[in-house]
Formats: sequence, C-alpha cells, structure tokens
Amino acid sequence: MNETPHPHGYIHQKDDYLKRLRRIEGQARGLQRMVEEEQYCIDILTQVSAMTKALESVALGLLDEHLAHCVVDAARAGGPEAQIKVKEASDAIARLVRS
Amino acid sequence: MNETPHPHGYIHQKDDYLKRLRRIEGQARGLQRMVEEEQYCIDILTQVSAMTKALESVALGLLDEHLAHCVVDAARAGGPEAQIKVKEASDAIARLVRS
Amino acid sequence: MNETPHPHGYIHQKDDYLKRLRRIEGQARGLQRMVEEEQYCIDILTQVSAMTKALESVALGLLDEHLAHCVVDAARAGGPEAQIKVKEASDAIARLVRS
Amino acid sequence: MNETPHPHGYIHQKDDYLKRLRRIEGQARGLQRMVEEEQYCIDILTQVSAMTKALESVALGLLDEHLAHCVVDAARAGGPEAQIKVKEASDAIARLVRS
Repeated sequence: MNETPHPHGYIHQKDDYLKRLRRIEGQARGLQRMVEEEQYCIDILTQVSAMTKALESVALGLLDEHLAHCVVDAARAGGPEAQIKVKEASDAIARLVRS
Repeated sequence: MNETPHPHGYIHQKDDYLKRLRRIEGQARGLQRMVEEEQYCIDILTQVSAMTKALESVALGLLDEHLAHCVVDAARAGGPEAQIKVKEASDAIARLVRS
Repeated sequence: MNETPHPHGYIHQKDDYLKRLRRIEGQARGLQRMVEEEQYCIDILTQVSAMTKALESVALGLLDEHLAHCVVDAARAGGPEAQIKVKEASDAIARLVRS
Repeated sequence: MNETPHPHGYIHQKDDYLKRLRRIEGQARGLQRMVEEEQYCIDILTQVSAMTKALESVALGLLDEHLAHCVVDAARAGGPEAQIKVKEASDAIARLVRS
C-alpha cells in the first residue's frame, strides 16, 4: 500500500463520502432553520434521528474499508503492526457502539 | 398553548441550541476536509463519534423540554391530547434509541 | 396513586413483560452454551444483538407506560412533582440512548 | 487454525466470558423479580441499562478477539477468505451499532 498515493484505502469512494457528508452538513443547517422557526420539537427530533443514521452509515462504511485495507494489509505485512491496528479498530468500534 | 408566542417550550434556550447546531455543522465540514485530505480513517471515525454524541445531546435536551412543556401541559389541559403527545414522544424516543 | 393496588402503571402488561424477560434470560443461557461449545464468534454476536434488541424493546415499553401513567398523573396532580418525574424520565432516556 | 483445538480465538478468556454471561443471566432474573414486585419503573429501566451495557461489553470483547484472531489469521493465510471475514465482521459491527 505504501507505494500508492492513496494510503488509507477509502479513496476510491472519496466522492461518495464527500457527497454524503455534504448532505449531512445540509441536515445540520436544516435543523438550525427548524429551531430558528420554532418548529415542532418532535419534527426536529425526527430530523436528528435521520442525521444520526446518516452519520452512522458513513462511519460503518469507513470502518469496513479500514478493516478490509489497513487491518488486512498490516496482517499480511506481518509483525506487531496488525495487533496495533486491531486494537485501534476495536477502540473505534467501542466509541461507535457507545455513541 | 396557541396564544403564547413560544409554543414549543424550547425557545428560552433557542440561542444555545443554535450555537450547538452551528458547531455540529462545522464538524460536518471538518469531516469533509479530513476525507478530502485523506486523513487516517480512525481519526475520521473519532470525529464522527464526537459529532454523533453532540447530536445526541441536542436531541436529549429537546426531548427533555418537550416532556417538561408539551406533554405536561397537555396532561394538565385534560382530554385525549396527553395520550397522543405521549405516543408521539415514545415514538421519538424509540427512534433515538435505535439510531 | 397511592391508593391503587398497582402504583406503577405497567401492571396490566405484567405477564407480557415477565414472559419477555424469561425469554431474555433464556437467551443469556443460550449464549453461555454457545461460548461453552466454542461456537463461531459471529454467530454469538448475532445472538447478543438479538438479545440487546429484545431488552431495548422491554425498556421502550416500560418507558412509554411510565410517561403515560406516572408522568401524566403527576402533571394532572399539579405541584412540583411533575417536573421531578420529567427529570427522572429524561435521565432514564439518556441512559438508554447512551447504552 | 484448523489444527488447534480452539478454533475461534476467544477460548483463553472462555471462563471470563462465561462468568460475565452468568451475571447477565442473573440480571435478567433480577428484572423479573422487580416486575413481579411491581417496583418503580425508573429503577427497572436503570437495571435494563446496566444489563445492556454489560452485554455490549461482552460483544465488544468478542469482536476484538475475532478481529485479532480470525480476521488477522485469514489475512495471513491469503486468498479471498480475508475479505469474507471482513464482510462478516462489518455486518456484525453494523448490527451492534444499530442495536
């Protein structure tokens, strides 16, 4: 992987992630407008849930690519790096599950 | 409730919610920059978890105000409205717990 | 409320909750058997997710009844009790959302 | 891996997992007693949250061992198996995050 210009594996879907994150940014602006206009609380909460799900889905996609590329590559390279990568990934998964 | 200028109860913290949502919008832009620059996956995931927690905290605040104002007011007004409000709130809570 | 024999509102579904909790207890025993027999990790994780969802569903049901009975009754009774009940419920919701 | 008597990697912590799952089974029985005795809803919800956290922690532990053993071993063995293992793990993570 070190010889490629795209070290972190998710590059081939970069445009897709950027598009999804721009939509999430738009949802954050939409929420500000809803609060500004004092819209109904429950409607705002519905939007927050949709935005949380969109974020979660981005996170799960990035994590899948991380496992498929960084973790698998480190395992193949041998040495202690694989266990470091697994520990990092497990910690990130724990943060996702608990957030 | 219809005669008050602030029908949904969260108005007295409106500025605080707007500030928090602007910060969340900034986090969404920060994530785009991280993906654009192909930063390390795990660092991006850490930011996604922080953003999810910030959103969750906004949702819990809005829900608390909704219960304290809309649900309590509907209960005091009597009639079937209280049960409708409780059902709506329970559905919103289920969406939050599952998202 | 103190004069009723069923102060906490969920009594009319008590048998249903007990049945669901017995099934959850059975899932916990099933998980022990799976670990004992060293079954495949991913299959164990699937069972853990099913059990978590079953627990979550019990919690959402109890919370709905709590809002519909305790919180609404406290609001109708007037006085500061309603705000105490709302605070308690909001704290319980936050624990559920974060767990 | 097929020649070892402990194919799924978590065996060296088997007793620890069994102990934790027995405690979770006990929590499920405790919840039944609380409902049976019609204890306060919020107290029951607090116990449900504690039990969910305990289950989540078991799941995160098993997942970490799965990544460190099955996924890393499959990557080292080469061939398409690693990608199958990563896909399985990602699906399990998605179920955990969403439950």
